[in-house]
Amino acid sequence: MRIEENEIFNKYFKNLSDKERAIFEGGISLGALFHQFVGTPVNKKSKESLEKAIEESIKNQPFVEDVRVNIKNVEEKYKSLSGDMLYVELTIKVNKIRVYFKLEYIKELDYPLMYIEKIEKL
Amino acid sequence: MRIEENEIFNKYFKNLSDKERAIFEGGISLGALFHQFVGTPVNKKSKESLEKAIEESIKNQPFVEDVRVNIKNVEEKYKSLSGDMLYVELTIKVNKIRVYFKLEYIKELDYPLMYIEKIEKL
Amino acid sequence: MRIEENEIFNKYFKNLSDKERAIFEGGISLGALFHQFVGTPVNKKSKESLEKAIEESIKNQPFVEDVRVNIKNVEEKYKSLSGDMLYVELTIKVNKIRVYFKLEYIKELDYPLMYIEKIEKL
Amino acid sequence: MRIEENEIFNKYFKNLSDKERAIFEGGISLGALFHQFVGTPVNKKSKESLEKAIEESIKNQPFVEDVRVNIKNVEEKYKSLSGDMLYVELTIKVNKIRVYFKLEYIKELDYPLMYIEKIEKL
Repeated sequence: MRIEENEIFNKYFKNLSDKERAIFEGGISLGALFHQFVGTPVNKKSKESLEKAIEESIKNQPFVEDVRVNIKNVEEKYKSLSGDMLYVELTIKVNKIRVYFKLEYIKELDYPLMYIEKIEKL
Repeated sequence: MRIEENEIFNKYFKNLSDKERAIFEGGISLGALFHQFVGTPVNKKSKESLEKAIEESIKNQPFVEDVRVNIKNVEEKYKSLSGDMLYVELTIKVNKIRVYFKLEYIKELDYPLMYIEKIEKL
Repeated sequence: MRIEENEIFNKYFKNLSDKERAIFEGGISLGALFHQFVGTPVNKKSKESLEKAIEESIKNQPFVEDVRVNIKNVEEKYKSLSGDMLYVELTIKVNKIRVYFKLEYIKELDYPLMYIEKIEKL
Repeated sequence: MRIEENEIFNKYFKNLSDKERAIFEGGISLGALFHQFVGTPVNKKSKESLEKAIEESIKNQPFVEDVRVNIKNVEEKYKSLSGDMLYVELTIKVNKIRVYFKLEYIKELDYPLMYIEKIEKL
């Protein structure tokens, strides 16, 4: 991104602290990931390439430092990717703040939950 | 949601202030909205029903107080919904914090930007 | 669509009979519908607006004469739309051929199946 | 797939010739591909992994013999995958019939067109 563009971006985010910005961007990335890829046909053979593509596409989002995607309960026969099959670890870094996010299926809730595991000040 | 479920949920979010929780949930909802609906065929006739369905589906997300969706640059002939056609106003309320989010195409950036317009303490 | 555009389109489809064209377009519409909307948050309150928006968006596709969408097993609490919740009847008409398509969950297969119910010559 | 399942499947498709079945399945796969992946963030670095994942996921669909995906007009800076960036070659084989499908952006129509290039009897 060119410098002028960066300045325009920052104008829109000067009302947020680095921590709040990180939390916002992590939320966007998790919502994006879930709703972009749920429904994709997947089986044992295609699992790995799908995990990699999800990771690479989410790395495109602003401030993403790292992302690991693990697709669970895949079978020989293909099925549509559903939210409860997703296990995601995402790290967002804004200046000296690093936030660790997780998306995982919580059995007690019967729900794929997105939450924040840890916030680090570097 | 039953009370026990609520308690389980809260366990995962006790590391966030109400403001941070609101920012996180707003990010998720905007990321979800964008990536769920971009690509949908739309023209002048179907614009209104699509706006309404996006609003109703996002109202399902936790803590959403209000959401308004306006799809711009729709034509007689159908085309695929793209990010630059979306104009969204979203309000998230967590206890005594209300956060106003916006998704709009920013011409200078050639980019559909998600950002926070205002944070209110009630 | 203007006349010249129609001629360009037809150039690409002159290798198909009306029946084959109808079958092709119905397949596209069902694949589109499934993969566009699976993952959308839905509950009892938003069910109807989502059904309507899916119908309206699919009516945008070429040669669609009619489409009815019924979302099944919706609950008070929202969940992500999955393929097994979809029941769709679609009619495609190309000149004097009308083809009736269906998308429905087949229990014996544990699979949301897209198939052709009937082909009519008018 | 187990033999009994195959028999159940075939029951639903006995009203179609092999050629018609191939045309139907190709339509579904192209509609699925387009609407599943349009909107995915992509740039030069992630282009290849996304192409591969799309190919692998579509190979999961019934009767797909081969599929090649080429994402065009990718830049350093990421953007959302749009239909006009997709170039896809898909081959479906049902018994002794092979059908070659294409999805490509047609400039004269300003439209990403799905069509059938060739039908082969083996």
